[in-house]
Formats: sequence, C-alpha cells, structure tokens
Amino acid sequence: MLLKSNSPQITVAIDAQGGDHGYAPVVAAVNFALTLYSKMNLLIYGSNECYEKLVKAKIDPKRYEFIQAPMTVPADASPKDVLDYYQGSSMALAINAVKEGRAQAAVSAGGTGPLVTMARHYLGSIGHVRPALAARMPYAMNRFTLMLDLGANAQSDAKDLADFALLGSAAAKAMFNLATPRVALLNVGTEDQKGSHVVREARDLIMNDRSIYLQGYLEANRIFCGDADVIVTDGFTGNVALKAAEGVAEIFGKAAGLRKFIAKMARPDWLLPWQYNGSVLLGVDGVVIKSHGNAGEEAFAVAMVEAARCAQSPLLQILKDNIEKSRG
Amino acid sequence: MLLKSNSPQITVAIDAQGGDHGYAPVVAAVNFALTLYSKMNLLIYGSNECYEKLVKAKIDPKRYEFIQAPMTVPADASPKDVLDYYQGSSMALAINAVKEGRAQAAVSAGGTGPLVTMARHYLGSIGHVRPALAARMPYAMNRFTLMLDLGANAQSDAKDLADFALLGSAAAKAMFNLATPRVALLNVGTEDQKGSHVVREARDLIMNDRSIYLQGYLEANRIFCGDADVIVTDGFTGNVALKAAEGVAEIFGKAAGLRKFIAKMARPDWLLPWQYNGSVLLGVDGVVIKSHGNAGEEAFAVAMVEAARCAQSPLLQILKDNIEKSRG
Repeated sequence: MLLKSNSPQITVAIDAQGGDHGYAPVVAAVNFALTLYSKMNLLIYGSNECYEKLVKAKIDPKRYEFIQAPMTVPADASPKDVLDYYQGSSMALAINAVKEGRAQAAVSAGGTGPLVTMARHYLGSIGHVRPALAARMPYAMNRFTLMLDLGANAQSDAKDLADFALLGSAAAKAMFNLATPRVALLNVGTEDQKGSHVVREARDLIMNDRSIYLQGYLEANRIFCGDADVIVTDGFTGNVALKAAEGVAEIFGKAAGLRKFIAKMARPDWLLPWQYNGSVLLGVDGVVIKSHGNAGEEAFAVAMVEAARCAQSPLLQILKDNIEKSRG
Repeated sequence: MLLKSNSPQITVAIDAQGGDHGYAPVVAAVNFALTLYSKMNLLIYGSNECYEKLVKAKIDPKRYEFIQAPMTVPADASPKDVLDYYQGSSMALAINAVKEGRAQAAVSAGGTGPLVTMARHYLGSIGHVRPALAARMPYAMNRFTLMLDLGANAQSDAKDLADFALLGSAAAKAMFNLATPRVALLNVGTEDQKGSHVVREARDLIMNDRSIYLQGYLEANRIFCGDADVIVTDGFTGNVALKAAEGVAEIFGKAAGLRKFIAKMARPDWLLPWQYNGSVLLGVDGVVIKSHGNAGEEAFAVAMVEAARCAQSPLLQILKDNIEKSRG
C-alpha cells in the first residue's frame, strides 16, 4: 500500500455499529488503519461498549474523537423508516459529519439501502445523476478496474446506466489518474445486437456523450482481466456478478487439510479479498464508503484507508466538473 | 461417470459445425463419447472436411451416420435470418432429426440465439411456457444444483421467471431423482423486501403455484454451495453470474510456473470445468443440448453424453406432466 506522507491531515467519520459483527472488528481496525495512515484522524460514532473497547485498546486519544450513538439502523429498514426513526443513529451521525465539514469522508458497514438513503438525504446528489456503488476489481498487482453499480439501485433503466458510465469515467480519472478511461458495458455477448433492450439503449446514450470513451460490451468472464478501466452494469447484475465471483474464490479457500494450504499458495498475491474492501458511493456530494457487512478487522481498516485516499484525491471535484460538462 | 448398461440404444444428432472451432474438436469428441457411452449412436451433420476427418479417425462406421450439411449458422444471426436462410444448416438438420424421431436428442455448440429460435420453431414449446437454458452447477463430487435461465432469453418478466421455476423444478425431479426439489430465486439479498420488482413479483407467482416448493431467495455467493436444488434467474443475470464464476476459476488456472501447478492441485476434483459442459434447453418439445461455443474435445463429448442421458431419462415426460398439472 502506497501512502503519501506529504498530504494534509484527513478526518474520517466511522459508523462503528453498522456491520454484521457490530463494533467488534472496528476497534482492532481503527488501530490498524491509524498505523497504516499516519495523516488520518477519526470521528468514531458508536455505543458505550465500543468506547470502552477503544479505551482498553489504548489507541492514541489524539488520533480520534468518540461520539456516543447508541442507535443502529437495521440493514433492512425501509427508506421511510430510515429517515423517520434513525436520524440519531451512528450511520446518520457519521454522514452528517461529512455534510457539516467536520469529516472529509464517512465509512459504514451498515445496510446498503439505509446508507444510500442517508447519503442522498444529507449530502444530496451531484447534478441529478443517480448515485451508484463502485468498487475496484483487481486484475493484477496494484492494477484495478472500477465496476459500478454494485447494488445501490435494485433496478435501473438505460438513463441510469448512462449516469453510471459518467460517474465511473470521472471517478477512474481521479482514482487511476487516467486522461481517457476505457468504459465498457457488461453484457451477455460482445456483438452489437446482444443483450437486453436496456443495455442496448444505454449503449446508444453513452455513445452520444462525447465526454465518455465507450469501448463496447464486456462479458462477465473478463471482469478480472483488465480489458477496461470502468465496467458499467445495473446494481442487481453487478451485485450478482461480484458475489458469484466471491463464491468461487471461496471454494478454493474452503478446501480442507493439505488442499487448503495449497489453495492459499495458489491464489495470486493480488487476489487477497480483504485488500479490496470498500465501495465508493459515487454521485452524492461527499465521500461515503460502504464496507462489506461482514468485514473483518483488516478489511474494515482497508475501507477506512480507502475513505481517506478518496477524500485526499480530487475525486469529488472531478466528478462535479465532469457531470457539469456532460449535463450542462 | 456412471453409465447404465441396461438402457436401450439412443441416437443423438450432432451439429458438427456450430462451435467456435468448427468441426475440429467434434471428431475427437465423437470418438471419446462413443467409448464413454456404448449405447449411443450418432447422426453427424457437417461439412465434407468434417467427414474426411471422421473417416481418417477410423471411428466405427456402425456407430454413426454422416449427413452433409455445408451451411453453418452465424452465432449472431437474427431470428428472422435464422429461419429464412439457414433451414439447411447443420444446426437446423440436427434439430429436425429430433422432430422427425430419427434422433432422441440434438447437440450444438452454435449460437444460443439461433439454437433457441430453431428449437422453438421445429419442436414447439410445451404448454406455452418460455424455454430456458439450464445447467448443472457442481457443489461437491457428483452433486449438482440446476440453474436457469443461462441466456436463452435476453430479458424476462415475473411470469417468465415463474415459468423457469416450473421447468427447473420438473427437470430436477427427473435429473436428480428428487420428489420435491428446493427451488430458490437468485436475488441480491435474502430479506423479503430485497431486489427488483420483477424478482419480488416472481416470488409471489411461484409461491402461488402449489406444485413448486419455493425455498426463498438465494445470493450469488451461494450458487456453488448446494443450498438449493434449483436456482431461478433471468437469462441476463444467469449468464453474467456463470461467466463471472468462470472468470475467477480461470484466474487460478492462469497462474504461471509453479503457481499454475499448485493451482491445479488446489482445485477440488469436482470443479473440472469440462465435466459440466452442456446446458439443456428446457421447455421445448424435444431434448436439445447447448454445448459451450469454445468447448474442447472432452467438453463436447460430455455434452453428447449429457444429451444421451437426458433422452434416456423421463425428463421430457416429467416436464410435460408438471406443466400440465400446473397450468391446467
């Protein structure tokens, strides 16, 4: 992991309650992340139990501030309930810290639905585009393809996919330092007439946007091959593709005895799953990172570092500039 | 592979031209399949060059009949073109052999679109259900989950998904010898309110069909875990999920040098991809097997054996009975 030492201090707001395992992995993750990223300070929103653990762990009190937030948003809460009943939750407070400028990014392992609802509510969306979750898919050591949407939206039309292409292209400029990212649309084949009406209509819309370089269609077996810099799909398909990939990777890990040992040796170094935790919610006016719900310590720490990196990069400014240029 | 020796003779019609590599892998595959399955004879539709290769390979001429079919359907031909210009193709003739009772099953590695168009045209669909491609996903040695649709349809509504559930449940009864297959709907979460409108509407439709046991939703990381006997999804998502899984499996295979050797050792025995070639086109009135377009010799042979097995099983009769019972 390359960390810049000449970058300014960054404050990241942490929802310490949202994950499947509550605050348990967060405390160790905090220690890990603060060591990894010396320019990062934290605002930690969580329960009293979480605070006790933090104190016990003897984490440098100059590096974090703890704010009590006993309420946790259930992962399956409806958008209405989220806004009606959970404005005092650890998730809401962490996102609000970004809105009010006390933090430059927020991280949560809470439910995707509530997180998207809260982020849109507090931060607003940039230029009326539809926000989407984007994650870096590794294809070689330190080489990535950005893929979106991974589940911020349950269903998307062609215009939404065009929004995702715009968001992804702009984000790849900032995150991968590329002048003209190669954007590909996920489809069931590469020929022009392949796929659903939605995908083909999206293709036409994206082709008409001169700010985006659309390379063409891409099939799912090529997601981890580096054929494109950005892969665009709807949140349902993206979520399924990512989880199917995880499922197969797990098979190799699930082997018992000697085979398990061998499977670990066989896995390429760049394919350690915890190294790639943290999807960015692109399209809202602030940096919000979604950590995997069952992220362990290392994975949650990686999400925090990802948050600090995004906040330190020109990501938000490039997104705004590109959306303005494209949508007038 | 367990082959019954007390079963009657089966004739399988082969489209020897359809795959990405033309007839090249077919000739060796024929030899392999005839050895594997002693009760199978073949009708082989292909070019003169294919015939010459068959003769040169000294395959027992009592086990196959060759019929010249020089025309090959392009994988991306439109449904209209398929029916207007390619009725004399190797694919059309192979499927027609099933319609006319000269063969009990057809195998093609040609394009999915043309194959579905031809099969529906020549064989008709059973009881107005929408045909779908189903394949066995391995989850342990000789243990499978049937997944559909894998790409016969580019887009599907809730009623189509309910058709797939009916087809998959009936097929699992025949293929896995189960009284009450556990059917699951692929979704982005397991909670009731998760997913797209289409998936949730499909869930209600399937719940109302008393002939199907719907277990609930299933996430894509559980496809290879044996949680359900049948996994139902639309053809776009199913195709993407399968290819994403293939892509990850390939990463382990792509490693170079020692790591490549290790990766082979780490792969569970039941996860050899060529062992699972051959999707069944369920819902048409005949047994049609789609082989992977770039199937090699072993894989194409496995598809032929799959065809003979399906033809020998009560698959078609059980499908008809179940569809009649469900749809009145």
